[in-house]
Amino acid sequence: MDLLFGPPLKSREERAERIGPGTGIAIFGLDGLSSAAYGPEAALTLLIPLGAAGVAYLLPISATIITLLAIVYFSYRQTIEAYPTGGGSYTVARQNLGEGAGLLAAAALMIDYVLTAAVGISAGVGALVSAAPRWQPHTLALCLVTLTIITIANLRGVRQVGAIFMLPTYLFIVSLLGTIALGMVKAVASGGHPAAVAAPPQLPAATGMLTVWLLLQAFSNGCTAMTGVEAVSNGVRAFREPVVKTAQLTLTIIIGILAVMLAGIAYLVRAYHIGATAPGQPGYDSVLSQLVAAVAGRNAFYDITIASILLVLALSANTAFADFPRLCRAVALDSYLPRAFASPGRRLVYSYGIYVLAALCGALLVLFGGVTDRLIPLFAVGAFLAFTLSQAGMVMHWKRSRARRARASILVNGLGAIATATTVVVVIIAKFTEGAWVTVLLIPAIILLMRSVRRHYDRVDAETASSTPMDVTRLQPPLVVVPLRLWDKVAEKGLRFAMEISPDVRVVHVSSGEDTENLRRKWPVLVQAPATGAGLVTPELVVLNSPYRYLIPPILDYVLDLERRYPERQIAVVIPEMIESHWYHYFLHNQRAEWLKVVLMLRGNQRINVISVPWYLKS
Amino acid sequence: MDLLFGPPLKSREERAERIGPGTGIAIFGLDGLSSAAYGPEAALTLLIPLGAAGVAYLLPISATIITLLAIVYFSYRQTIEAYPTGGGSYTVARQNLGEGAGLLAAAALMIDYVLTAAVGISAGVGALVSAAPRWQPHTLALCLVTLTIITIANLRGVRQVGAIFMLPTYLFIVSLLGTIALGMVKAVASGGHPAAVAAPPQLPAATGMLTVWLLLQAFSNGCTAMTGVEAVSNGVRAFREPVVKTAQLTLTIIIGILAVMLAGIAYLVRAYHIGATAPGQPGYDSVLSQLVAAVAGRNAFYDITIASILLVLALSANTAFADFPRLCRAVALDSYLPRAFASPGRRLVYSYGIYVLAALCGALLVLFGGVTDRLIPLFAVGAFLAFTLSQAGMVMHWKRSRARRARASILVNGLGAIATATTVVVVIIAKFTEGAWVTVLLIPAIILLMRSVRRHYDRVDAETASSTPMDVTRLQPPLVVVPLRLWDKVAEKGLRFAMEISPDVRVVHVSSGEDTENLRRKWPVLVQAPATGAGLVTPELVVLNSPYRYLIPPILDYVLDLERRYPERQIAVVIPEMIESHWYHYFLHNQRAEWLKVVLMLRGNQRINVISVPWYLKS
Repeated sequence: MDLLFGPPLKSREERAERIGPGTGIAIFGLDGLSSAAYGPEAALTLLIPLGAAGVAYLLPISATIITLLAIVYFSYRQTIEAYPTGGGSYTVARQNLGEGAGLLAAAALMIDYVLTAAVGISAGVGALVSAAPRWQPHTLALCLVTLTIITIANLRGVRQVGAIFMLPTYLFIVSLLGTIALGMVKAVASGGHPAAVAAPPQLPAATGMLTVWLLLQAFSNGCTAMTGVEAVSNGVRAFREPVVKTAQLTLTIIIGILAVMLAGIAYLVRAYHIGATAPGQPGYDSVLSQLVAAVAGRNAFYDITIASILLVLALSANTAFADFPRLCRAVALDSYLPRAFASPGRRLVYSYGIYVLAALCGALLVLFGGVTDRLIPLFAVGAFLAFTLSQAGMVMHWKRSRARRARASILVNGLGAIATATTVVVVIIAKFTEGAWVTVLLIPAIILLMRSVRRHYDRVDAETASSTPMDVTRLQPPLVVVPLRLWDKVAEKGLRFAMEISPDVRVVHVSSGEDTENLRRKWPVLVQAPATGAGLVTPELVVLNSPYRYLIPPILDYVLDLERRYPERQIAVVIPEMIESHWYHYFLHNQRAEWLKVVLMLRGNQRINVISVPWYLKS
Repeated sequence: MDLLFGPPLKSREERAERIGPGTGIAIFGLDGLSSAAYGPEAALTLLIPLGAAGVAYLLPISATIITLLAIVYFSYRQTIEAYPTGGGSYTVARQNLGEGAGLLAAAALMIDYVLTAAVGISAGVGALVSAAPRWQPHTLALCLVTLTIITIANLRGVRQVGAIFMLPTYLFIVSLLGTIALGMVKAVASGGHPAAVAAPPQLPAATGMLTVWLLLQAFSNGCTAMTGVEAVSNGVRAFREPVVKTAQLTLTIIIGILAVMLAGIAYLVRAYHIGATAPGQPGYDSVLSQLVAAVAGRNAFYDITIASILLVLALSANTAFADFPRLCRAVALDSYLPRAFASPGRRLVYSYGIYVLAALCGALLVLFGGVTDRLIPLFAVGAFLAFTLSQAGMVMHWKRSRARRARASILVNGLGAIATATTVVVVIIAKFTEGAWVTVLLIPAIILLMRSVRRHYDRVDAETASSTPMDVTRLQPPLVVVPLRLWDKVAEKGLRFAMEISPDVRVVHVSSGEDTENLRRKWPVLVQAPATGAGLVTPELVVLNSPYRYLIPPILDYVLDLERRYPERQIAVVIPEMIESHWYHYFLHNQRAEWLKVVLMLRGNQRINVISVPWYLKS
């Protein structure tokens, strides 16, 4: 355990586990930054039918997305400041817009995170196997191995994860920004018409017409470049003091880099005449691959850049692993999810959330055989729904606050809410038949589930809560029942315990021929005489018939009958039990004691208590 | 349950479940009779290299086998008479030759039964798919479905099985004996040279030489025709009164029919010049198929006969299901196997043995993908080893007995023992490299296992057995520990129970910030005041620290420490427990109560008892 997950951490070590911007970018930025690798490509793929003309449209689309990104950035900056203990969309929406909006945001984000994790892993592995086709048949296995590594890394705790993910993240940032800078220099030097080092494939002739619908679809696809942006504000608690400043700085760096990447890609794609190629077809070459080759040629730098893209895609799933458990914790603290989600594990991470995410993500990967491309357009719905609710919530927050800059803040967040809400509508419409309907159905289902969990807890609390002093009336020893098959030391020990806790003991024996006769004959000598001798009440011997050779039902019936006949008394069933010293001895003993306990639990009631009196076998 | 397995049967209904020869042949004869379908073929296959000349050698080989069969028959007749309560090889060998021989016989038979079951099913299914090649890809699935049907039928009980298996058994007997009779008439009428209705394929030219080794191998293969003969003497208890006569009559009929079949097949194969064709090769046609076609032509009768052979082969596995559980019961009664093997289930069959056989057989089928031809030569080892031990045992039995015909009996059984012992040696040598070595290794392993089971039971008995009167000294109420997280009705109920059974109660609480402060502050009001008011000893509140946020280890440590400090007292840990009304609520509550129970069991000792005080949730 310790080797794999690291030694357990004390609660007060939590402070030392907190992180700065350097690690923060790797942990909370991976998802956001890596989406630069598929967002522009997803938009360009839809523009293929427009031929060379289509490539030009990426600029306005990217400009719109970067504007959206800027609005969302300012909005989340404010959120971090207002919610320094972690202001995920759930918290903000719930506190400012009420329960319904909070649960809506939570459900949307949960779906988003599960999809992000699955798609990230499968996109990374997909890129890897398209570079090394020999591994193609093992796609699913590679996905599951990656998932396992990420899961274990996350169970080890936040800081460790940062260390593991830092290298590929920074490699990705440096090499992609380097490519963009070099490309820009070359483009400017050549008056806007640079010559490609390795020429991209000729753009195809136009086969379709430009329509508003097509642009909307392309925009929807491009919006996936913005997913993962909310990660920092969810995870504020993980940053070191001064918490707000550190988190804001991290967010600024992430968004800045992402904006530069998106702008740079859009500009260079047009300068070098690079278009998307049809995915899954022979000759497929990703946009970033064409771009790096055109700017720098197919050399060692190209290999390193492509490798870092693969790694970052595969590891982008990690953002989901950092945030999903935190989201679930917040929801669980409000009793909308099982409380186990809120208890920190041995390494101070919310292990339960990590397990659940790993399980759901693994299920998706298995279901889709490790190829989840079709899921990519879906997560924009969840992400933008969460953006919208978070920002609408912030509007309400500022309205109630008396802060100096409240009016300006309302404007920023209001603009963000409107822009992202519009985007949600556009994405749902544009992607409805391609699968957005699944999200539209899943969200209410998850909300219903969360509400029913809360209802259950409320009911249990109402039933069990108590602040009145203890009731000490009518305390009297229980009626004790001791099932006994034959007289041995195990039985004797159980009977002794029974007589220690109550003078009212009944020994029940299920009739079984010879053994029964033996017991009946020896009872006066074995029990009656010594009890009377010591001045104790003699336990009563009750023999039960069982025509079907069953052992447990007659005992259960007897206990239930006793309970009915003595409505004022507690019943205690003493079960003498052998404990094997080796697990493989399990099969050697009838597990009647275990079964009796289970049956008494299932069929019993408030007044039937079960006492295990163990006998530890020495061997 | 009832629909699938039939309603449970009372113990006294056992008599009505007993069977006569009509049903007995179907239940205990299927294995023996069906082996006529593969024994001769297995021998002929080895004679292929001798061409037309080889076919003639089946007559002497079959004659030897029929002689062996006759010896074994008389031997088992005597066994049935001497052991009317079921004289399997195990019982006979153990009672007369000692523990070692008994276990050797048991191990040999267990292997034999498991192999018989697996091979029977896969041979039947194999024949089916060679007739309907469309089903070839589903071989394993068909095997497992057959296994499931046989298992369920056997769990329903003996008589039911007879009813299900009677039709195919009698169809097989009637159609095969009919074929033989018709063939004989034709052969005699034609002066020994009948003309085939549908001619068998031309016998190939000889490619090999006749060697003693080849004949020995052919004989070993042919011996598989004798497996299953011991079934009746194992199952004597299942027959109706007069038990011995009914069982002997059944055995006589089975052996008689089998001998006629073997002789008839050997004669007709030569008369019609029928040889084996290479199994698994194109143009393969089984010996019985060729024979029926030659005698009666390929018509409706042919189809029915072949269908009955397929069915009987598949169902021959059933004999193993009838006998394996009985064998295990006998061994378990002597404590060499877990005692569960000896308890009759709801339908008066030994369900545990059926489960185990089904599991082992299923595992073999899966392991070999449903094609287990290679296992066929193996079971002769187990079967003949059991024959030998059984008969050697009978020799000892007669030596000690004062029966009138003891000398004659010794001669019969002694001859049987020598003949079958020789066969064992021949089979092991002839088949050693083909897999008999597995059996030779497995048998001692199983014996070791059985011995260690017995040793375990002996040790447990020595440890727990008692016939002395109960010790009533030093009886005093236990020290009671009540873990408590926060004050609610569930906790109150647990504390009430604790105070009912002992005046010495400690409430332990694992420190957790706010809750702890609350509890400490309210303790005087909630518990102290009412207890003092009622003149009771106030339970002590113990707060335990837990730097790693663990809940269970501090409680365990406290209990273990308490146990050390009070070596004279019993400890009772009262665990208040919520019982959910729906299984899906399981995930909503921390299963701390369950875990605490498990940990106390694993790490506890003789003086630590566990009391579950349930709280049944109303919702």
